[in-house]
Amino acid sequence: MLILEANIDDTTGEMMGYTMEKLLQAGALDVSFTPIYMKKNRPAIKLEVMGEEENHDRLQELILTETSTIGLRIRKARRLVMKRKSIPVETEFGTISVKEARWKQIVKYAPEYEDCRKAAQEHGVSLAEVYRKAEEACHQKEEGKK
Amino acid sequence: MLILEANIDDTTGEMMGYTMEKLLQAGALDVSFTPIYMKKNRPAIKLEVMGEEENHDRLQELILTETSTIGLRIRKARRLVMKRKSIPVETEFGTISVKEARWKQIVKYAPEYEDCRKAAQEHGVSLAEVYRKAEEACHQKEEGKK
Amino acid sequence: MLILEANIDDTTGEMMGYTMEKLLQAGALDVSFTPIYMKKNRPAIKLEVMGEEENHDRLQELILTETSTIGLRIRKARRLVMKRKSIPVETEFGTISVKEARWKQIVKYAPEYEDCRKAAQEHGVSLAEVYRKAEEACHQKEEGKK
Amino acid sequence: MLILEANIDDTTGEMMGYTMEKLLQAGALDVSFTPIYMKKNRPAIKLEVMGEEENHDRLQELILTETSTIGLRIRKARRLVMKRKSIPVETEFGTISVKEARWKQIVKYAPEYEDCRKAAQEHGVSLAEVYRKAEEACHQKEEGKK
Amino acid sequence: MLILEANIDDTTGEMMGYTMEKLLQAGALDVSFTPIYMKKNRPAIKLEVMGEEENHDRLQELILTETSTIGLRIRKARRLVMKRKSIPVETEFGTISVKEARWKQIVKYAPEYEDCRKAAQEHGVSLAEVYRKAEEACHQKEEGKK
Amino acid sequence: MLILEANIDDTTGEMMGYTMEKLLQAGALDVSFTPIYMKKNRPAIKLEVMGEEENHDRLQELILTETSTIGLRIRKARRLVMKRKSIPVETEFGTISVKEARWKQIVKYAPEYEDCRKAAQEHGVSLAEVYRKAEEACHQKEEGKK
Ligand code: NI
Ligand code: NI
Ligand code: NI
Ligand code: NI
Ligand code: NI
Ligand code: NI
Ligand code: NI
Ligand code: NI
Ligand code: NI
Ligand code: NI
Ligand code: NI
Ligand code: NI
Repeated sequence: MLILEANIDDTTGEMMGYTMEKLLQAGALDVSFTPIYMKKNRPAIKLEVMGEEENHDRLQELILTETSTIGLRIRKARRLVMKRKSIPVETEFGTISVKEARWKQIVKYAPEYEDCRKAAQEHGVSLAEVYRKAEEACHQKEEGKK
Repeated sequence: MLILEANIDDTTGEMMGYTMEKLLQAGALDVSFTPIYMKKNRPAIKLEVMGEEENHDRLQELILTETSTIGLRIRKARRLVMKRKSIPVETEFGTISVKEARWKQIVKYAPEYEDCRKAAQEHGVSLAEVYRKAEEACHQKEEGKK
Repeated sequence: MLILEANIDDTTGEMMGYTMEKLLQAGALDVSFTPIYMKKNRPAIKLEVMGEEENHDRLQELILTETSTIGLRIRKARRLVMKRKSIPVETEFGTISVKEARWKQIVKYAPEYEDCRKAAQEHGVSLAEVYRKAEEACHQKEEGKK
Repeated sequence: MLILEANIDDTTGEMMGYTMEKLLQAGALDVSFTPIYMKKNRPAIKLEVMGEEENHDRLQELILTETSTIGLRIRKARRLVMKRKSIPVETEFGTISVKEARWKQIVKYAPEYEDCRKAAQEHGVSLAEVYRKAEEACHQKEEGKK
Repeated sequence: MLILEANIDDTTGEMMGYTMEKLLQAGALDVSFTPIYMKKNRPAIKLEVMGEEENHDRLQELILTETSTIGLRIRKARRLVMKRKSIPVETEFGTISVKEARWKQIVKYAPEYEDCRKAAQEHGVSLAEVYRKAEEACHQKEEGKK
Repeated sequence: MLILEANIDDTTGEMMGYTMEKLLQAGALDVSFTPIYMKKNRPAIKLEVMGEEENHDRLQELILTETSTIGLRIRKARRLVMKRKSIPVETEFGTISVKEARWKQIVKYAPEYEDCRKAAQEHGVSLAEVYRKAEEACHQKEEGKK
């Protein structure tokens, strides 16, 4: 996995927002902005883009085209990723898929954001309420299997 | 005292830095940038400018001319300011003026930044070393008077 | 105009993002997050929502429903807003509407983000290129009239 | 309720941390630090302290004594606070008190941080697990009453 | 020395604070949070944990258990650390230990935070006053030896 | 190219500003401050300095002398930099040099900040206006050559 970084002090917030959108569309694994202070009292943004090695040309090109930076730093990153499995659970707000993540003896459940968002809008309840019901259903299912 | 505020997501860091310089030249008491997150994934800056009431037209005009904001918020602010007095102290790095601030029974000493900066450059010592010597000299002077 | 504020240290980033979306849908004039540090080493977010007085119940309810805050601060804000007019301009990337903002003798032009975004996607050019062409066309039009 | 604010560019992080601790001990309702950029490339902190009117002298004195600021801004703030009630719930990790917050038809439950923290440490489970069990127990209790 | 990093957008500030506490208890050399902006308007936190190689399993496990992240990045870091020595100095506020740090011809003194904090509380003086006295005593001691 | 990093929680904003100035004078390629949260509720700054390998002793010494850090992290960074050429363009505000940056088929123009700043001050126009005129002149020149 590669990380592309650039400190940018002469691109507007509007264009940075657009750049994030394009990078994600182009397959970036993760895009983040970090507020930083640069010389001459310039508030700036450190752009960090995570992508697969084979995709880095496309990502590099996008950064150099859509932002004002004239250079970027490239470094390899070793990543540890938990084993993920998607588990559909039934709730009073319909079916929600929950991401199960396992690593050694650690098990975690995280309801899928987009499913919960849709259910919250449709049923007029808070997003937190949908999350809670999805987590509850998932844990009952897991405890049932034990 | 007045505070002028604007959330700005379409002005570059370079231009924000220039705006701060112009505002301070125009007599702003204090200018600060706060990194904020705005809609559409836009990293933005909340500009805050403190100025005297009679100077607010000039400051307002500068904000509207040098940044892309099309509006700004204005609020009055009640300020408590300690009584200040400048005390020259002798140090091995030459004379440094120290700001004494008093309020009720609270007394504080803060060496003048520009004096210390010049002394540090001339004598090839760290800025912290000059600060320390100035503070020491000032406290000896004050304890001497007690 | 009213500003609603809350310091929030027990709501996730996912839910804050959803809250911003709902607030904007509900007519908030502006929503911003400011990263702050709170007690017990908690990284938190100061939520600021700007809205019309007659809309503040709806906005208040959303903040209390979708985030974990159990209170919020309300203050009136005096606003200065430049006179705005939308000017369509012809560019090689099609028609782009440009926002003209006037206040006293200050005149500024800002191309409409969504128009530029669509044109950039369709014509496969950078967003900056579309912005530049729109600004140029607009200034030629204004200088033509003078 | 009063809000005391000061932009501070010449106090160290260690002393700001100590100041927060002292302010909370002295009864401040809320203390937050906001990272800001100030003139001469100075990374600074905007200190915000919320306190009751009758306590503001003590808080003001602490700010002026423990930080380098020589002034501070004071403003009144109108606050809306939900009605709160503490509900003890039984979980497999012992008794946890849950804060119920009500305003009009909005009801929210938030497990008490310190109870959960203690339970997580004692039972060697994640804090999230204790939160989840406490929320579940609380909702069963509430749904039972309906 | 190893650095473990994760961008986290679905863990609350309360849980991040708890995670920092647990990581430091487990022997992390340094733990820091950096406020970042992630996709879908999510305010997030980049967690950075510095630890010895032989301790990284324990730290890794804690991050995956106490936060919602399902992965983390690991990189080796080359560190330069000054030679440190603890020097007790006598002050009117009791004995304070001062950390002396040396590297080549650079010498620096930094009073021990916890000693100064205790002395400030006991003697009812500002933390800055204790720091200043400790630094003064230390420099007199060093200049005495020269 | 080398990157030197240090997390600093016991140096004031004034001294960090001075350190940035000294580092840039000493030939650092880029210096940035990132606001971070550290233990014991300390607002801190991550200092990042980019420099050539042969210059790193001087930069290292400055960091250890002017800030309170007793250590720093050093890592190599692979950099991609676009080919740059300076193009003078004539505008109604005098001659402005524009930096042309090329990489593969990507071409970008960025007016030189200091030239624009001087022109804006002399001719009493906004910095944005000078930028716009310089960009326009540059593009006409480039389109003329095609
Ligand atoms: Ni449904
Ligand atoms: Ni479970
Ligand atoms: Ni001298
Ligand atoms: Ni004293
Ligand atoms: Ni078209
Ligand atoms: Ni014009
Ligand atoms: Ni128990
Ligand atoms: Ni419920
Ligand atoms: Ni004592
Ligand atoms: Ni010394
Ligand atoms: Ni001229
Ligand atoms: Ni062009």
